[in-house]
Amino acid sequence: MFELLKTDTQTQARLGRLTTARGVVDTPVFMPVGTQASVKALDPRELDEMNAQIILGNTYHLNLRPGLEIVRAAGGLHKFMNWNKPILTDSGGYQVFSLAKIRKIKPHGVEFRSHIDGAPLFLGPKEAMEIQRALGSDIAMVFDECPPHDAPAHEQRHAVERTIRWARECREQPRSEGQQVFGIVQGGANAALREECARALVEMEFDGYAIGGVSVGEPQAEMFKAVEATAPHLPAHKARYAMGLGTPAQMIELVARGVDMFDCVLPTRVARNGTAFTRRGAFGLKGAGYKADFGPIEEGCDCFACKRFTRAYLRHLLNVNEILGLRMLSVHNTHLFLRIMAEARAHLADGTFGDFYSEFIRNYVPSKKILDAAKAANNER
Amino acid sequence: MFELLKTDTQTQARLGRLTTARGVVDTPVFMPVGTQASVKALDPRELDEMNAQIILGNTYHLNLRPGLEIVRAAGGLHKFMNWNKPILTDSGGYQVFSLAKIRKIKPHGVEFRSHIDGAPLFLGPKEAMEIQRALGSDIAMVFDECPPHDAPAHEQRHAVERTIRWARECREQPRSEGQQVFGIVQGGANAALREECARALVEMEFDGYAIGGVSVGEPQAEMFKAVEATAPHLPAHKARYAMGLGTPAQMIELVARGVDMFDCVLPTRVARNGTAFTRRGAFGLKGAGYKADFGPIEEGCDCFACKRFTRAYLRHLLNVNEILGLRMLSVHNTHLFLRIMAEARAHLADGTFGDFYSEFIRNYVPSKKILDAAKAANNER
Repeated sequence: MFELLKTDTQTQARLGRLTTARGVVDTPVFMPVGTQASVKALDPRELDEMNAQIILGNTYHLNLRPGLEIVRAAGGLHKFMNWNKPILTDSGGYQVFSLAKIRKIKPHGVEFRSHIDGAPLFLGPKEAMEIQRALGSDIAMVFDECPPHDAPAHEQRHAVERTIRWARECREQPRSEGQQVFGIVQGGANAALREECARALVEMEFDGYAIGGVSVGEPQAEMFKAVEATAPHLPAHKARYAMGLGTPAQMIELVARGVDMFDCVLPTRVARNGTAFTRRGAFGLKGAGYKADFGPIEEGCDCFACKRFTRAYLRHLLNVNEILGLRMLSVHNTHLFLRIMAEARAHLADGTFGDFYSEFIRNYVPSKKILDAAKAANNER
Repeated sequence: MFELLKTDTQTQARLGRLTTARGVVDTPVFMPVGTQASVKALDPRELDEMNAQIILGNTYHLNLRPGLEIVRAAGGLHKFMNWNKPILTDSGGYQVFSLAKIRKIKPHGVEFRSHIDGAPLFLGPKEAMEIQRALGSDIAMVFDECPPHDAPAHEQRHAVERTIRWARECREQPRSEGQQVFGIVQGGANAALREECARALVEMEFDGYAIGGVSVGEPQAEMFKAVEATAPHLPAHKARYAMGLGTPAQMIELVARGVDMFDCVLPTRVARNGTAFTRRGAFGLKGAGYKADFGPIEEGCDCFACKRFTRAYLRHLLNVNEILGLRMLSVHNTHLFLRIMAEARAHLADGTFGDFYSEFIRNYVPSKKILDAAKAANNER
């Protein structure tokens, strides 16, 4: 289901094609995040126009609201939200460990209370797969345990043991028609644990492999190390997905490290605070410096927002809290993340990824504020 | 510039055509409100797709933010907000009297403090027309005094006297190319004052006439009386505009009383609270009754939202605070207001308005909540 079309000669970047029940996804790919059955502030037409190939949904959130019966009655998540292209659903493992209150880990899952109304709930491999089956996502993720990045060694070890055991349970559950299941590698910053977890999962032969336990508050260097400690132990002929990442520069760095798939709330989240991404870094559009700037958000960009509106107008909208302002920044930012991946694919096809990579990183000015937001981006997914 | 194409035989309804510098407006017409250079939650493409012919902007608000220099530097309001069809701008008179703090009425205008930052400002006929000239609206409104609906008789009289005097001053100010200017009739619930104000303004030969001092908190019956006391004193060959009104049923009632133009924040404002309008009344879509309702917001509606999404999905979005929910209700509601006016025009052309009118009113169930919101709709314009 994943074809590795080409591997870069200078880096470990890969050009690939992932075939799902609802169509083909060209990789490397950025997947906009639609946690609650909506990519925040965007409509499906806008996503279509920016060539989004696949989007995310979230098992934990959708199970709470609207609840499984509603999505089931609608005929699955695609019909419920009117999105006919592929959907990947996260398992809810991450959310149970980060959002839910009063957790109790049991052999076959986690007892917890809803972060919305405190209702007692249970989620484990069986439940997570059952929900994802009802959602009818094209790619389901296994139910994993994701400890904080600064968890002590024994906790990381227990998390890996449980993640492996639960992955095996997930593997045995029934799936919806054509649904693929990806394993998730945990292990924190411990390279040996990462390798152990990866090897165990690879043995189970999942349809693809995710690198979890990243974008959970750790410094960027540690995140890169975790990916570098994992990727080499994953099979070349399966898709690799770095969960919850990252900034444009981080995504390009990870493509160069052999990662194929990304998801991140950053483009829409920072948009709601008035921050625009460009290929050279992010900037706050609310600043007085843009009040009479009649250029587009980003020169040369052909997104819906840049074709129609000026920085001066969007700055005004943001400053007077008009929804159109954050809508258009969400459009631009998401379009940019998708476009950067499209460019990476084009350069991989042309054999020029190495130059593209070094030039991209050279031109990109990271901002501490955005890096801090990126570190915890998973928390709002 | 206004052609009266046809007058209904059973009611006073009129079919007309208003030609402006930026194109023709078929009347009766609903004008979506873009107070701060954006029709709340909508983008220009969406407005285009629902056949919006003309939108509103507001002198008071745009003068505060982004400020006149910015709009001027952008080349006017149309270019600033990327809307190429006609724009009507309110003069700011209403806002000075309703929003601004610490007012002092002077012979040539009003000293007041900005409701944003308390900055001292002055707005009068000269200033309001100068700002509207810079905005470059196709239709500018005179600077009027709009007292509360329960103001004592002598206040209503003084307001009418000032409104007439200021209208004359506005009439003498320079305009932008092709800009029309409409007079505004005040007089509250006093029919004699209404007539006096109308006659004085008609003598000045404005391009059109508005009925002001409605939708300012008065009961519906009083509003109808104010319109009935004014319309007969306005010339047949000029457009008549009822400011800040109303619900779908109120608009149809006013069309039957000879009004040609309407503007109202209701469709977008109630959308943000989860309320949907239909031809039969409004309903709150957040209710549990819609959680598994997989029909469209309104059966038979061909708006962007109804063609794509179900009540169940939109209810979910509204309940989890996803922006797409209020966006789509804003699309549907605004589309409905425009469509009702298009239907009124079609029936006027066919000579069947009388039946359409009585059937529409018979089917429409007014809600107290919406009527209360409509009463004060002007306050948020």
